[in-house]
Amino acid sequence: MSKKTRPAGTLLYAQSGGVTAVINATAAAVIAEARVHGVPVLAARSGILGVLNDDLIDTSSLRPADIRTLAHTPGGAFGSCRVKLKSLIDDRARYEQLLDTFRKHDVRYFLYNGGNDSADTALKVSQLAKEFNYPLTCIGVPKTVDNDLAVTDCCPGFGSAAKYTAVSVRECALDVAAMASTSTKVFVYEAMGRHAGWLAASAGLAGRTPDEAPHLILFPERTYDEAAFLAAVDAVVKRVGYCVVVASEGIQDANGKFVADAGGGTDSFGHTQLGGVASHLAGRVQQTLGYKVHWAMPDYLQRSARHIASETDFRHAQAVGRKAVQFALKGLNATMPVIRRISDSPYRWRVEAAPLERIANAEKKMPDDFIREDGFGITDAARRYLQPLIRGEAYPPYAKDGLPKYARFDFV
Amino acid sequence: MSKKTRPAGTLLYAQSGGVTAVINATAAAVIAEARVHGVPVLAARSGILGVLNDDLIDTSSLRPADIRTLAHTPGGAFGSCRVKLKSLIDDRARYEQLLDTFRKHDVRYFLYNGGNDSADTALKVSQLAKEFNYPLTCIGVPKTVDNDLAVTDCCPGFGSAAKYTAVSVRECALDVAAMASTSTKVFVYEAMGRHAGWLAASAGLAGRTPDEAPHLILFPERTYDEAAFLAAVDAVVKRVGYCVVVASEGIQDANGKFVADAGGGTDSFGHTQLGGVASHLAGRVQQTLGYKVHWAMPDYLQRSARHIASETDFRHAQAVGRKAVQFALKGLNATMPVIRRISDSPYRWRVEAAPLERIANAEKKMPDDFIREDGFGITDAARRYLQPLIRGEAYPPYAKDGLPKYARFDFV
Repeated sequence: MSKKTRPAGTLLYAQSGGVTAVINATAAAVIAEARVHGVPVLAARSGILGVLNDDLIDTSSLRPADIRTLAHTPGGAFGSCRVKLKSLIDDRARYEQLLDTFRKHDVRYFLYNGGNDSADTALKVSQLAKEFNYPLTCIGVPKTVDNDLAVTDCCPGFGSAAKYTAVSVRECALDVAAMASTSTKVFVYEAMGRHAGWLAASAGLAGRTPDEAPHLILFPERTYDEAAFLAAVDAVVKRVGYCVVVASEGIQDANGKFVADAGGGTDSFGHTQLGGVASHLAGRVQQTLGYKVHWAMPDYLQRSARHIASETDFRHAQAVGRKAVQFALKGLNATMPVIRRISDSPYRWRVEAAPLERIANAEKKMPDDFIREDGFGITDAARRYLQPLIRGEAYPPYAKDGLPKYARFDFV
Repeated sequence: MSKKTRPAGTLLYAQSGGVTAVINATAAAVIAEARVHGVPVLAARSGILGVLNDDLIDTSSLRPADIRTLAHTPGGAFGSCRVKLKSLIDDRARYEQLLDTFRKHDVRYFLYNGGNDSADTALKVSQLAKEFNYPLTCIGVPKTVDNDLAVTDCCPGFGSAAKYTAVSVRECALDVAAMASTSTKVFVYEAMGRHAGWLAASAGLAGRTPDEAPHLILFPERTYDEAAFLAAVDAVVKRVGYCVVVASEGIQDANGKFVADAGGGTDSFGHTQLGGVASHLAGRVQQTLGYKVHWAMPDYLQRSARHIASETDFRHAQAVGRKAVQFALKGLNATMPVIRRISDSPYRWRVEAAPLERIANAEKKMPDDFIREDGFGITDAARRYLQPLIRGEAYPPYAKDGLPKYARFDFV
């Protein structure tokens, strides 16, 4: 149709792991960019499961308006999954099944949108294809609210969750401040992050001085010491009148026990009680210090809050989608489009190709100098890093009924 | 200064009870409207406590820009409190203390911004003033996320919390849908509402069909029957693939026991565990049905989420503030500016004066015909009522750092 040579073969796109507010922005950018180059796009239903089961969605039926709507819809429109393939030897049959699906649909480009596990899978698939002399270009596309991917400066999905966190903590802190004289004195907010405290750290952007909330942040990078924590809470309440705590779900005590697992006891009905860091900490504050407490656990709300998505994050998500297609067509096999920061202020960045080998299964922790010496807050270095990532409001369009116009595809 | 006669005396404004995303919009409207009429405004620090302790803030120092910022700042800028005065006989000394403060500052207008308890206090103060022949006009100004005030069609603060709820539930439902094949199958969201299920009901706006989330809503107006609930969850998971539950914090079992109090058992550290409806329900689903569960408890986040405030709610909040001043100056003693709905579609409303006697201590439950026959959802009548209240996005302005420009007054 075009005078240019159309690249041979089909592009297969799949979403993997926990979804985010902007992973569909990446998906939309992949589809749109592939169309520019005349490459048909199939999407796997429910991530790698769809590839294994030859359960694919033809995106050619999506109209341009659908693709725009997809770009501002949270969740994973094509479905995601938590399935980690083992080594090429242990999971041989399944890897070969993937290759069968690729062959059947003439898939020449495989874009796997996920975290470090997915980078590992994309890398292994590329090795297998080479072994079988099957012409395939595999690209890992970054995504995770945990912000724990190596090499890339940050991960699409994180900035929006970070913005949600900082805004929410600033808001509820104003609520607590207004009522503290006769009501709640300590408020505990639980942030996602089992291994790295990136989201808890982002709450630190809500305040600039030690007396502004959040007053205490608990990071998984620091050992949780109950006595020190309770003393710090008490000191803040006595100084400020109230205390807002942000706790990472992954904090552990000196024995390496997750505080979140402190639950799992028995409730007053004799039933097993589910745990949670915030409810545990709030309980301990109430029992030992006697202050009235409240706590919040936003859980999935924080990673799906497209209504308060960061403009920076949205642009990152679209950019890695576009670049993933371009890298695929250039044959940059076994790479990932990563975000390279050029400067903090003004914030400048670009997308580069990085080898999946450097990313697969690696985990980026917060740098040590991002955590304040007392272990309860963030440093200026952390602020310089985090601040640009929550900048700008990428609001979704709303319908007259007051709800965002999110796509409702019947894919999953 | 003006050629018009300036009304005699000062206006005293106080915030009461749980604060909201838009109570400061009411405060800003009160101050701005009073200035139009040349009436000085004092604000009590920490609600009625400030009146009792003669701890008042002179708002004349606020510049017009401050007042605009105040209007889009959540929480209660002047401080609120949870203090309920008893009867005029039992709490005589404290009521007379209020009168002393009024006399001292020549307060002729008392505007008390709160719920039904506050309406009761404002009413009693007006009775006392009459008894002492002190010339005072008392106005109750409505505010509560619980939406449980009598007479008024709705309460400022509710619409924004309702919008937060509907948007958040729609968002996290997209997340759950994307992952359900291999991950979380049941998600439980806990909504505020100890006595009335208004906020839980508002979540119902997120879906239009029985297969759209939220699939099940638990109202305090209906007895919680665990077996029926678990059967319903199971049926939804089998039909839809996943189930999103919205539970009101106030649900009770057949013995009148709050499900939220099912916690308060002992955790694995031997410590008292704090309860919660969502964590309890999630635990029961996991134990009896074996599904992977997640739950969220937004707590104060839902009532302070100014970033997703409803335009309708914001307008209501400002209108009752303006009208409160106008009613005060007209001498409409012991009244409240209430919202009267003229039509659902197009949504039309006006503010009227209603006697505090009809509002004080009354509690508006949800009409029976707002709850679906099976007890797990809302009806079209509920939609017609709720829908206009979440309409429009009254976004706050943001600074370049990606955070809303909320006021930071040093009042509290």
